[in-house]
Formats: sequence, structure tokens, C-alpha cells
Amino acid sequence: VAILVGDLAGVYADRMLDGTPPDARRVWDELKIELNIGQYLDVLGTARGGTDLATARRIARYKSGKYTIERPLHLGAALAGRLDELREPLTAYGDPLGEAFQLRDDVLGVFGDPDRTGKPAGDDLREGKRTVLVATAMEGATPAQAALLRRHLGDPALDTEGVEALREVISSTGALARSESLIAALTEEAVQALAHAPITAKAREVLVELAYAATTRTG
Amino acid sequence: VAILVGDLAGVYADRMLDGTPPDARRVWDELKIELNIGQYLDVLGTARGGTDLATARRIARYKSGKYTIERPLHLGAALAGRLDELREPLTAYGDPLGEAFQLRDDVLGVFGDPDRTGKPAGDDLREGKRTVLVATAMEGATPAQAALLRRHLGDPALDTEGVEALREVISSTGALARSESLIAALTEEAVQALAHAPITAKAREVLVELAYAATTRTG
Repeated sequence: VAILVGDLAGVYADRMLDGTPPDARRVWDELKIELNIGQYLDVLGTARGGTDLATARRIARYKSGKYTIERPLHLGAALAGRLDELREPLTAYGDPLGEAFQLRDDVLGVFGDPDRTGKPAGDDLREGKRTVLVATAMEGATPAQAALLRRHLGDPALDTEGVEALREVISSTGALARSESLIAALTEEAVQALAHAPITAKAREVLVELAYAATTRTG
Repeated sequence: VAILVGDLAGVYADRMLDGTPPDARRVWDELKIELNIGQYLDVLGTARGGTDLATARRIARYKSGKYTIERPLHLGAALAGRLDELREPLTAYGDPLGEAFQLRDDVLGVFGDPDRTGKPAGDDLREGKRTVLVATAMEGATPAQAALLRRHLGDPALDTEGVEALREVISSTGALARSESLIAALTEEAVQALAHAPITAKAREVLVELAYAATTRTG
């Protein structure tokens, strides 16, 4: 029944595009295909029980990045009848920002304050999500740290101490610091890309605000 | 993964409507919503373990009838820019024919020749499908026959003898004969409705052929 409710919500989303230009439909369909492929890669990665950094980044890009930032901007441009002109500049802004947004999500999923994220502390760890943060930690881990990661990741009974031990590994491998600097670099890249976009000063200002809001949020 | 492949196929189906009139999209979206609701009612009926005749007919109508005949005809009319004019006549034809088509499916699912249907004999019985045929048999069953239906329906290990026993009940309760006469009456109603439709003689001829092909098929 949950799957059927999801399908039904999908049809109602489709219906909201009634009367919009064909370009908007095309972006919307593309968004759905990318999300589907990202979800497939995620299922595959979880089933195989391990994901290297390059794969984790690819999954994050398709599953979250593109549909969070880039494609909604394309949709807006299509609704305004300006997709041809704005597609590339909005990709140059949205693609790195989408990845930064997802990296922030990964960090909050492990280190976030439950009162602000609305999710129990360490939930991503209990679910065993193969995030870019975890893949980075795995790459930098000593054999003992890697064993600890493998043992605890995806353990639904993981307690507060276990969560703390995993956080410690993720910090001490440098994965947290590397994620923070990658978030900062990607956000900077997104903001720089706006300089060349054929948009008004007001639009640029809003998009700069969005870039910082999406990547420095705490919940 | 199977669910994701289904979702992906759904998006590719949506994409085939690229460039068609808005009316075609609306029919398509309506078709998807009806199918979804029919599937939900089917899941609900299976979970509750019993379906009366009125409910079985409603499920068949939403789950199969409308998307098999009526809505594809509406889609064709919309693609030809004639939906306003043809909606009602095509419903008058498609609605009873869709039900007749589904009733034929029910009969073939129990009594069909596996070489022609491509499905193992009695598969519907093993799956415990709450078809109109089965609901009709249940209504006309003696207490002993009803007990036999309840015991065997949905038994995945049902053997040839068990299938034969269920067939015997479905025949002797009159459910098979009643389904056959309902199929004939609904097909007749569909064909009669064409008399008033604002379509060419050639179109009428093709639709009459379709009505008999859909309801007298053996596979």
C-alpha cells in the first residue's frame, strides 16, 4: 500500500505540470529518470555491502544532488521559457551545490543535533548508509578502524557508545575535515559560476543566499 | 529493483506523450490514478481474505476494465483532437466491454487451455485471486462448496485434482454459465452503443470486431 501511495503521489505531481511548456515536462521526466538510477545504484551498493568513494559520489549526485538543486532550477527556467539560455549556467551552479548539499546531509546524519535535524543521532550509521562521508572514512582508515566501521555500520541495535566510536573514527581519519573543506570548495565553485550567468543582480543575490543556506544549515 | 524498473518504465511511458495535446495527458493521468485505486482495492480485498460480488466487480472495473478499453479509446480520441465529442460514446462502448474483457480473463484463468493462455492451468486459483467469477461462485455455493472454495483458494500447492474440484464447484454453482451470459450481454451492450456514436462506418466496423475479439478469445 505504501508503494501504491507513492505511485499515486507521483501521478498527482505529474498533474501539477498540466498546462506547462513541453520543456518543463522534459526536465521533469529527466529528473525522475536520474532519481530512479541513483536509487538503483544505492540499492545495488547496499546489497553488495560496500561502496568506494567514486561510487558513493556518483550515487549522491544522481540520487540527491541533481533533483535537489540543478533540476528544480532547470524546471523553473523552463517554466519561464528560458531553459535554452539558462541550462548551462544553472548546471554550473547547481551541480556542485547539489553535491555540497548532500555532503552536508551526510555530516548532519552522523554529527547533527537530533533536536535540529529531527532525526535520532546516528540514524544514518544504524541504517548503514554508504555515504560519501563513510566512504572517505573507509579510505583513510587503519585496518583496526576499517574493521570497526565494517562491524558497526548497519547495526540496527547500535547504541550511544557505538555511535560515539564511529564518530571518533570518522573524525580521526580526517573524513569529517575533508568533507567540510569539500563542502566549502563546492559551494565556492557554485557561487563563482553565477558571475557568468545571464541573470539579474537580484536573482544572483537570491542564489548566493540559497548556496550558503543549503550548505551551512544545522538541520 | 523490480519496483524501480517499473517506475522507470512508467517514466518512459510518460515520455511517449511528449508533444501530445494536454487532453491526452489528462486522460493518461486519469488512467494511472484509476489503475492505482483498483490495485489498492485488490490488495485490500486480498488482505481481508474475501470479496463480495459488488466489490469484485468494482475492482475489476478500476483495475482492468477502464485501462484496457475505455481509457485507451479516450487517449486516441484526445490525440485526434476529438475527445469532447467522443468521450461519452466511447465510455458507453468501452465501459461494458472492459468488464466483459476482464470476465473473459477470469474464465480463461480457471478453465483456459495453458497452451493458448500461456499460463499454467488454475494459476488464478493458486494465487487466490478474488475474481468476479469466484465471487459469483461463492454467492451461489452450498455450505460444503463454500468451505471447499475457502480451503483451496490461494493454496500455492494446489494440485491438478484440487484445481479440478474447484472447477467443478464453479461450474455447478452456475457461476461459469452466469459469467458467460454476462460477457455476452455486456458485449452486446457495447456493440449497441456504437449505433449512436458520431464515427465513420469503418471505425464502427473495427470497434465491433474488437468487441468480439476481446470477449471470445481463447488465449
